[in-house]
Amino acid sequence: MTKMSKKTIIVFSGDYDRMMAAFIIANGAAAMDDEVTMFFTFWGLSALRKTQKPAGVKSDNSFLQNMFGGMLPKHAEKLGLSKFNFGGAGRFMMKKVMKSENVMTVAELIETAQEQGIKMIACTMSMDVLGITKEELIDGIEYAGVATYLGEADEANVNLFI
Amino acid sequence: MTKMSKKTIIVFSGDYDRMMAAFIIANGAAAMDDEVTMFFTFWGLSALRKTQKPAGVKSDNSFLQNMFGGMLPKHAEKLGLSKFNFGGAGRFMMKKVMKSENVMTVAELIETAQEQGIKMIACTMSMDVLGITKEELIDGIEYAGVATYLGEADEANVNLFI
Amino acid sequence: MTKMSKKTIIVFSGDYDRMMAAFIIANGAAAMDDEVTMFFTFWGLSALRKTQKPAGVKSDNSFLQNMFGGMLPKHAEKLGLSKFNFGGAGRFMMKKVMKSENVMTVAELIETAQEQGIKMIACTMSMDVLGITKEELIDGIEYAGVATYLGEADEANVNLFI
Repeated sequence: MTKMSKKTIIVFSGDYDRMMAAFIIANGAAAMDDEVTMFFTFWGLSALRKTQKPAGVKSDNSFLQNMFGGMLPKHAEKLGLSKFNFGGAGRFMMKKVMKSENVMTVAELIETAQEQGIKMIACTMSMDVLGITKEELIDGIEYAGVATYLGEADEANVNLFI
Repeated sequence: MTKMSKKTIIVFSGDYDRMMAAFIIANGAAAMDDEVTMFFTFWGLSALRKTQKPAGVKSDNSFLQNMFGGMLPKHAEKLGLSKFNFGGAGRFMMKKVMKSENVMTVAELIETAQEQGIKMIACTMSMDVLGITKEELIDGIEYAGVATYLGEADEANVNLFI
Repeated sequence: MTKMSKKTIIVFSGDYDRMMAAFIIANGAAAMDDEVTMFFTFWGLSALRKTQKPAGVKSDNSFLQNMFGGMLPKHAEKLGLSKFNFGGAGRFMMKKVMKSENVMTVAELIETAQEQGIKMIACTMSMDVLGITKEELIDGIEYAGVATYLGEADEANVNLFI
């Protein structure tokens, strides 16, 4: 019997800890040869931002769109914890423990996800609302909307919203 | 091959942005001819409140139940963002951007959901705990508990908790 | 036709209200003879802490690990609400209403879950990161990682992340 074993994860949250959970599940499934699609929407898009902001890129964003974009974490390692963040101190401490326990950071988890061929999709509607442009996001990702997500979810046996 | 393509979404969160995500997925699936059931529980019930509070309705709620009911957002468009809400300013700004990008508000998404025949169920146990009465909620919804949810989920191929 | 009706729930959140939702769904499914596995990770682990801290247990935790452990709620009934907690006053009030409405507390829901044979798994990686030891957690639970979760999810027809 061939078993359907595709997984999809909607990454809505921009919390460092929830992002870890999402990528640990995704990477775990990919390591077990499952096909995995991650759909990044709203605050989850922050994780896909490039470490270096592209210079000299003009956007036709409105003032309000730029304001949201400006408030969002600059890249994955700047995300806050959902609890005990204390302006970044909590994340700093958690990352120290993670290092001593050989647990990967979100940046490392993203790199592994790309190496394992996990399909990462940025939600274009959310990008419009939050004023995030393609130039700001990492390479190797796809751009689509809810219909694409639903198509992927229909082929999967585990679908999570994180 | 007939494929099972029913979807269920538990709407637990009362955040404006998570509510948008829930209804965009639900409406997207319904537009693709999927059967969709949304189960509103805890803070998610806020979205189903009528814009106008019914006058002259007496309830046998206790003082504590009324207190929770009084703290909850008055209706869908009064929900706060999960991030950058700033006492409603963040939601106000996001809605301005949404309008300019032709993205529907939650109130419009709910209307569309009802037009598309999406089954919306209010969790009766949560209503008791939060002191929410049927008179406060919009028309055209159903009332049930966890057993009904589980029955719907057993028939679906995508089940999300938002 | 024998229908697959196993359920899995990842309990990531440590909020009292989300914990209620998780256990009400889990216990509801178990009451309908479904097999249920709950996987407790990150802040969700707080719910599994013993009411009485074990005395005289030495751990090889680092200072930082002990700090996270020290900040976490002491046991299930000390968890806060995701909204309107007000330093515990909100949870206190909600529990008063729950009692008058005959709604079970999280501690009672956990007891019922164990009586119904629900499999409760603590995520060992999260335990390392948060400095939580086996001695601190209640009896009758299992310990495993993401691969075990994925194995369980592959056998289930409803998989939620709470």
